[in-house]
Amino acid sequence: MPVPSLPLIVDPDSPTSLQRQIVEQIRRLVAGDALRPETPLPSIRRLAGDLGVARNTVVQAYERLIAEGYLEARPQVGTFVAKVPPASARLPEGADAGGGEGALPACQFQGRRHHIFPAAKRAAIDFRVGRPDPWSFPFNRWKRLLAACLNRASVQLTEYGDPQGLSALRQAIADKVAPMRGIAVEPSQVIITVGIQEAINLAIQAFVSPGSRVVVEDPCYQGAAYALQRAGAMVSAVPVDDGGLRVDLLPPGPVRLIYVTPSHQYPLGGVLSLERRRSLLEWARATGALIIEDDYDGDFRHENAPLPALAALDGLNSVIHMGTFSKSLGAGLRIGYMLVPKPIAAALTDLKALLNNGNSWLEQAALADYIGSGAYGEHICEIRTLYRRRRDVLVAAIGRAFGDSDVTGCDGGMHVAWHLPPDMPDAAVLAERLQMQGVAVYTLGTGGAAAFGPDSQWPRTLLLGYVAVAEPDIERAVELMARERLPRPRPQHSDYQI
Amino acid sequence: MPVPSLPLIVDPDSPTSLQRQIVEQIRRLVAGDALRPETPLPSIRRLAGDLGVARNTVVQAYERLIAEGYLEARPQVGTFVAKVPPASARLPEGADAGGGEGALPACQFQGRRHHIFPAAKRAAIDFRVGRPDPWSFPFNRWKRLLAACLNRASVQLTEYGDPQGLSALRQAIADKVAPMRGIAVEPSQVIITVGIQEAINLAIQAFVSPGSRVVVEDPCYQGAAYALQRAGAMVSAVPVDDGGLRVDLLPPGPVRLIYVTPSHQYPLGGVLSLERRRSLLEWARATGALIIEDDYDGDFRHENAPLPALAALDGLNSVIHMGTFSKSLGAGLRIGYMLVPKPIAAALTDLKALLNNGNSWLEQAALADYIGSGAYGEHICEIRTLYRRRRDVLVAAIGRAFGDSDVTGCDGGMHVAWHLPPDMPDAAVLAERLQMQGVAVYTLGTGGAAAFGPDSQWPRTLLLGYVAVAEPDIERAVELMARERLPRPRPQHSDYQI
Repeated sequence: MPVPSLPLIVDPDSPTSLQRQIVEQIRRLVAGDALRPETPLPSIRRLAGDLGVARNTVVQAYERLIAEGYLEARPQVGTFVAKVPPASARLPEGADAGGGEGALPACQFQGRRHHIFPAAKRAAIDFRVGRPDPWSFPFNRWKRLLAACLNRASVQLTEYGDPQGLSALRQAIADKVAPMRGIAVEPSQVIITVGIQEAINLAIQAFVSPGSRVVVEDPCYQGAAYALQRAGAMVSAVPVDDGGLRVDLLPPGPVRLIYVTPSHQYPLGGVLSLERRRSLLEWARATGALIIEDDYDGDFRHENAPLPALAALDGLNSVIHMGTFSKSLGAGLRIGYMLVPKPIAAALTDLKALLNNGNSWLEQAALADYIGSGAYGEHICEIRTLYRRRRDVLVAAIGRAFGDSDVTGCDGGMHVAWHLPPDMPDAAVLAERLQMQGVAVYTLGTGGAAAFGPDSQWPRTLLLGYVAVAEPDIERAVELMARERLPRPRPQHSDYQI
Repeated sequence: MPVPSLPLIVDPDSPTSLQRQIVEQIRRLVAGDALRPETPLPSIRRLAGDLGVARNTVVQAYERLIAEGYLEARPQVGTFVAKVPPASARLPEGADAGGGEGALPACQFQGRRHHIFPAAKRAAIDFRVGRPDPWSFPFNRWKRLLAACLNRASVQLTEYGDPQGLSALRQAIADKVAPMRGIAVEPSQVIITVGIQEAINLAIQAFVSPGSRVVVEDPCYQGAAYALQRAGAMVSAVPVDDGGLRVDLLPPGPVRLIYVTPSHQYPLGGVLSLERRRSLLEWARATGALIIEDDYDGDFRHENAPLPALAALDGLNSVIHMGTFSKSLGAGLRIGYMLVPKPIAAALTDLKALLNNGNSWLEQAALADYIGSGAYGEHICEIRTLYRRRRDVLVAAIGRAFGDSDVTGCDGGMHVAWHLPPDMPDAAVLAERLQMQGVAVYTLGTGGAAAFGPDSQWPRTLLLGYVAVAEPDIERAVELMARERLPRPRPQHSDYQI
């Protein structure tokens, strides 16, 4: 099959070499999808003839593009656009792939960004998941704490600190935070991280290799699922129900790591029973799996006493427990922590040092004082009361408007999952309609959850983070939702997939 | 060969199962090197007999230890301690490998920790490299800036921010910091990182795969060398001289990435000439290499005008430029930035989001105000004057005490490299002797440098970070050093290697 020539123009009078002109233009054609993957390129002889350049110029241009991953040579056949051209080749419109000097090697990163930062305009009433009440943040005390830390600072701002985290903060967590989950831990087992997201990465980088078998809940937190996928893990997803992970469906071993959210399953909100916790630990022992316990919102139990964390039941032997101040104080602090088995504390600290040399000092110091003084514990109690009240208002409002409703995750945490009744549109449609009325609600996807298996309930599930929404706004929003009822209920078992 | 039995003691009355007791004790023997790699273990029959337990108990214990990577089964031969037992097995003395329930899979992380955090007791006079003057930190203004940011804060502390970094800070860097290096850049090309160390990791994770060929300077910054080694890169090290990287010794391509410190070579301090910069860019174009330009202390030029950054010469096409506020303000802030080619800004931001959801808000906000107001520029000018004075005092003191001395890296930055005269002991010996007198000086290794080739000059090089040491202390320290002169000079060409 004769291969058409390329729409290239070369200028022998340009200060840019002919070879470079060819390279840049082909790069741009591939980047702009003008040359699609696997398209054959003209032969060297042909292109050299078309352009009036030496064959060697085309040879070198092709070699360069092959080295960069834009083209592929198939011996005895010819040169083709690569099956998967470099990620960096997919340019946003208007961007310039090769307007200047030099070029980029192919970017290896093929991961997905999880939904964490609201790119869209803020809604007047926002049920974003994982967003604490901004007005409950202890601004005045925080200001005083920061000033006090700065007043007594000598070299802490100007020098590197312990990459494991500020000693005083690790002590405060061991003394006052871990015991709230029943976990006995020494400060040497506490590692301060840039949120739970970094803790997840540290665990993955220490324990997961390409091909490692790992287990997650289905659905689960995008930030964990995407990070595991990026690490090349073979991910098995185990369904959850109202009681959290279906431990009866856990696969046989060997499994390297399991990522779970026992205190309030993310996103559906189930609480793992003591019985299931014990089964999970037993399964982990049998399969050799390390358990990652993500306790992202375990500060908030609205009913009953909290169950002991997996790390507490296990004595921190085969469990890494991850907590955060993103929910109790705010995600803007970017302070989380991991409680780790003793034998791996040093290796994980070395890894943290190699990643970013540790967290910043000032807010660690303020937080250590805040926890140490007991004020943090009081703060949690206060906002727990507020959050419980808002949960009650939301559940009652849904009950009034929709009758007996299927809302899960009410026992704790900061959000619920509402499995929409049949006379409501799908979650994505509802979210879009409410957005126009200044109310933001979230689907599993936009709420930061990743789903694995086919499950017709997913498009019917709405995530509502209620703790940052004032009570009258909660009631107003539910009223607006009620107006979106369909004239005729949709069929209950939809084939529609997210 | 009969295999000796093992020094195990099992207690049938213990609440811990017999199998578990065996597993834990063998783990501890391996961890403590009491059982060395490849040591044969007693047969199942033999050990069961010795301990008076059921054979199946030993079978299960061995199987468990094999699964954990402590032991290896060689069919038809027997069971042996693994060639490479889990890294987590190498316990610090006194640690307890398996005191409780469950066990850990093997930790994959095999990297080294770079020297960044001083574990030792602080010396009265400390020439630590990369440590800005703590008393020059603008404490009062910083306190006011933080308070002002908190006063106007609404949801920034409680919600996730843009993982690329606070928009105002990216704007401030594009407007006021990048131009100091001659770099024209848009805020969309700025990514805020947890120091340069994180920026290095983002670049590595985006561009380096196991086996990727990369080039570094020799010697170079440990934090970069170790991170590259951990990523599985094939590292070629190119020597440096007083003029920085020996661009004439760069290897032929293809090369994926080169890591360089052109404005003040780390650790030896050479400044890459404009001519070498141009050769380097040309080489990168020819080999397809991405250039990582680590501008860790480029704020401080003591002689002549600064040369344009590689990123400036290249127009940010095949260069990622990394800067930090660790040197101009303080490492305790953990704020650095990378200026990146447009086509990869989105991918690197996604990667940063997946790593840790972005930096904390408050200090980003304060820094944006500080830079925006022009105060940051004034601060740099002030400390530059102070730092230059301290450099002058140090160089003069060495000159007085030692005559015509070989000190490199004086033209800029915050430290110099002193190539010790023949009548001085090796750097490590000198450092040890001075430590006892309350003065901390650094070898290439303890100063955070990694060396690759054999070079007899390395043990003879002392790194002196002078900017945080008061002038009288500098003079006092050099006097103490002069007292360490050897009665007879050591031979000039030593075979001694670090």
